[in-house]
Amino acid sequence: MKPILAFAVLGSALLWGQDECKPSALNVAEAKYPCVYADGRATFRVNAPNARQISVRIGKGFDMEKGADGIWSVTTTPLVIGFHYYSLNIDGATVADPSTMTFFGSGWPNSGIEIPAPDAEFYQARDVPRGHVAEQWYYSKVTGKWRRCFVYTPPDYGANGKAHYPVLYLLHGWGEDETGWYTQGHVDFIMDNLIAAGKAKPMIIVMDNLNAVRPGESAAIYGARGLVQINGGTPAPAGGSRGAAPGGRAGFPANYGAAFTDMMFTDLIPMIERAYRVLPGRENRAMAGLSMGGGQTFNTGLSHLDKFAYLGGFSGSCGGRGAAFDPKTACNGAFADPASFNKKVKVLFLGIGSAEGPNTKNFSDALAQAGIHNVYFESPGTAHEWLTWRRCLYDFAPRLFK
Amino acid sequence: MKPILAFAVLGSALLWGQDECKPSALNVAEAKYPCVYADGRATFRVNAPNARQISVRIGKGFDMEKGADGIWSVTTTPLVIGFHYYSLNIDGATVADPSTMTFFGSGWPNSGIEIPAPDAEFYQARDVPRGHVAEQWYYSKVTGKWRRCFVYTPPDYGANGKAHYPVLYLLHGWGEDETGWYTQGHVDFIMDNLIAAGKAKPMIIVMDNLNAVRPGESAAIYGARGLVQINGGTPAPAGGSRGAAPGGRAGFPANYGAAFTDMMFTDLIPMIERAYRVLPGRENRAMAGLSMGGGQTFNTGLSHLDKFAYLGGFSGSCGGRGAAFDPKTACNGAFADPASFNKKVKVLFLGIGSAEGPNTKNFSDALAQAGIHNVYFESPGTAHEWLTWRRCLYDFAPRLFK
Repeated sequence: MKPILAFAVLGSALLWGQDECKPSALNVAEAKYPCVYADGRATFRVNAPNARQISVRIGKGFDMEKGADGIWSVTTTPLVIGFHYYSLNIDGATVADPSTMTFFGSGWPNSGIEIPAPDAEFYQARDVPRGHVAEQWYYSKVTGKWRRCFVYTPPDYGANGKAHYPVLYLLHGWGEDETGWYTQGHVDFIMDNLIAAGKAKPMIIVMDNLNAVRPGESAAIYGARGLVQINGGTPAPAGGSRGAAPGGRAGFPANYGAAFTDMMFTDLIPMIERAYRVLPGRENRAMAGLSMGGGQTFNTGLSHLDKFAYLGGFSGSCGGRGAAFDPKTACNGAFADPASFNKKVKVLFLGIGSAEGPNTKNFSDALAQAGIHNVYFESPGTAHEWLTWRRCLYDFAPRLFK
Repeated sequence: MKPILAFAVLGSALLWGQDECKPSALNVAEAKYPCVYADGRATFRVNAPNARQISVRIGKGFDMEKGADGIWSVTTTPLVIGFHYYSLNIDGATVADPSTMTFFGSGWPNSGIEIPAPDAEFYQARDVPRGHVAEQWYYSKVTGKWRRCFVYTPPDYGANGKAHYPVLYLLHGWGEDETGWYTQGHVDFIMDNLIAAGKAKPMIIVMDNLNAVRPGESAAIYGARGLVQINGGTPAPAGGSRGAAPGGRAGFPANYGAAFTDMMFTDLIPMIERAYRVLPGRENRAMAGLSMGGGQTFNTGLSHLDKFAYLGGFSGSCGGRGAAFDPKTACNGAFADPASFNKKVKVLFLGIGSAEGPNTKNFSDALAQAGIHNVYFESPGTAHEWLTWRRCLYDFAPRLFK
């Protein structure tokens, strides 16, 4: 759930004493811990009088110590700016810290902490006209189930009862769900701020759930497996790259992504185009996603260029994982005819955090070398986390529907 | 966060074998536990290899035992139908169970379990025209902060670009927040189903956060205090009536509720009437709330009958706590002139769960005795929990704006 106090700490770094530990903006009301120092260290506290061992897992593990007051605590080394999932390990149980709001990642509701970024203003609430994020339920013929997505409509959507808008389909990553972009990502604040500044066109943004399987197929394709392990008898492994995973990444079935693509064209897009005032055609339709959602975007989008003119991969795409790049065959041959590709695809966006390694830059360079126009964006100082993806959206959205 | 799997278990009681334990509808995807038997018992499992003692607190505590497979588990006695908050106590730490989605109650994100009710269909997704729940941010002059509410708009709101609608202001209870009515309460499904059946008028429903304090006032008026205790050094007491409270109910300041009322008239209602197509005047405005939100409704509403023609208290109002009822002085004298009151107030609704005791029935009877028209509604077999309040809304909404 999006924390109402998201603005309490951010943006006040100038008034931040070196020894002052400020409550994280993601804490529940009045909770003093976790708190964050100006240099990015954070202090966590847990009241577990009978525990043997407690650690905080935030990227890596920090063992807590029991103080004279009986409360366990630890102060970390400086953490990277931005949003981090984290969890507690209490005598072997991986759980959320009850001091924070929860954020769906790695297949379960994690705790979260926000280390204020110097550029935080772009994703904060400001006194500008506000769009809406609404939940939208729909029945999927492909999956045989009710599904939920969230839909951002721009500030003038309600008042401007005749206007039609282009649409960006925006996906979360592995182990996350349709709440990620508005809860962790602040999609609404980012877009409201861009639109108010005249930097992005008013658009509709549809945030769906990557988890789509046909009736009878296993849904255990991401995150969920970790919890099955926890409750089903197998001890949880050490956790994924984001540190909070109780189970670790599940293996993907060979047909992963096909059901989502089918669902998108059979159920989601037609529903959106019935329920909202949408401009028709590929030049008014974009798709992007982060991490696994970037993979899905390239999977779906490159094979349906008749449907999309804009594609974005934020820390995820169809290439760049180190394999030699052959433009004729890579990504199912989508780049085999650069002239045709460049004519169709108005923006091919590849974003990454600077701490994520050179693969995406190498992929972008190789595409450029092969004559494929693309935009490379690098978020300074960030890793495979939400501040990277907030910044990707902030850079990507102004390029759309021009 | 509203669980996408809310329909997986409910409504299939006929196919439920006596020995079959079905995953709760509120579990994260693929989590097999907690699971629910047809008779309402539930089995919980926790993997905490090094713990000394674990219990599940769901109304009361159930101690877990460590099995031969190293997993802790317990099967409860039969639980009442409906939604229950619950928490785990792991070696003294009160935490959520990572197997379920979380639900904001008692000031922090609790776990939840749903024991299917025989009448569950009224709050389930059906294939009817769907309204929307959207988040709405606004700046409050009274509190000096950004606030968030959720706004339900009925199915025809978008397509019917000229129509104006009456508004129900609907409040959560102690320790909850603005997410309660759509996440725990299923306000959208209840209203969509009522409207599709022609039983309720299409209306806008505004769900705000009770927690409103002026700058400088303490915000520790509900729930939050529990967590301050957990992290601040004082061991958590035994928990509140709903069982999951780590801290217990905080004392309310003497002026509690005044800032909310001021905020409502200064900030919230004007914002809603600017941002949405709203019918003007008291006969198109209703207010209701559950528990503490019912108290707030009577506090705000009875002193502003020029603003509201419909008032509802779901397990909460201004009276009925056992004190002798003097219609001339009770509730600040709001009932002193029955003829005038009855002329102004089109519906005064008092709802309660049958397991909550006779106070609300007594209050209703005393009001009727004094000549005050009111509606008494009793939810069979339920306590101070969300199934009572879902049923209250289902009975109350059709009475509005006639």
